[in-house]
Amino acid sequence: MASVFTRIIQGELPARIVFQDERVIAFHDIHPVMPVHILIVPVKEIPTADDITPEDEGVLGHMLVVAQKVARELGIGDSGYRLIINCKHDGGQEVYHLHMHLLGGQRVGPIIAKRS
Amino acid sequence: MASVFTRIIQGELPARIVFQDERVIAFHDIHPVMPVHILIVPVKEIPTADDITPEDEGVLGHMLVVAQKVARELGIGDSGYRLIINCKHDGGQEVYHLHMHLLGGQRVGPIIAKRS
Repeated sequence: MASVFTRIIQGELPARIVFQDERVIAFHDIHPVMPVHILIVPVKEIPTADDITPEDEGVLGHMLVVAQKVARELGIGDSGYRLIINCKHDGGQEVYHLHMHLLGGQRVGPIIAKRS
Repeated sequence: MASVFTRIIQGELPARIVFQDERVIAFHDIHPVMPVHILIVPVKEIPTADDITPEDEGVLGHMLVVAQKVARELGIGDSGYRLIINCKHDGGQEVYHLHMHLLGGQRVGPIIAKRS
């Protein structure tokens, strides 16, 4: 079963795509938590950060270069942003297709939210 | 002026180092906000995520491979973790030498903390 992100990559689900090449896609999160909230996703279906291999270094680094490019295009290269990858249960990962959040447009809070 | 991280890399400042090769160093944050809080830092003095170039893709991807390796060694590969890169003011970046936080050992909260 293809992940929801693979279905976006294959054009089966709509998304507000801001970047796409043969290795990476980037699109607006449908439930943004910040004024800018983009997801950067490798085309390769890597489930989690715990599943990467040294052979993936190129595409993983490319995700960061894409994040920078998209951030600049959306006008937050100078103001700044936070990049987040959640891994498995303790990381709060929701979709098991590796992805990176790009969050900006206002100042983010501390790196760990207070838990109630 | 060398960054505090470069001074750690050069052995001028102490740190609880958990990984080091010619491209990346990883050590315990001196002010941990989670039971596991590691910083993963490229040896190359890249100030921010907005300063990376496509030539850096290899070392950036290597930072993620190192994060995975360290997470497994510290026993949180299965439970999971969060990886964070803060960029400039809005990202809450404190040291202007690119670095990635590895946070785990208990479940993290939402990706953005409530601001007061």
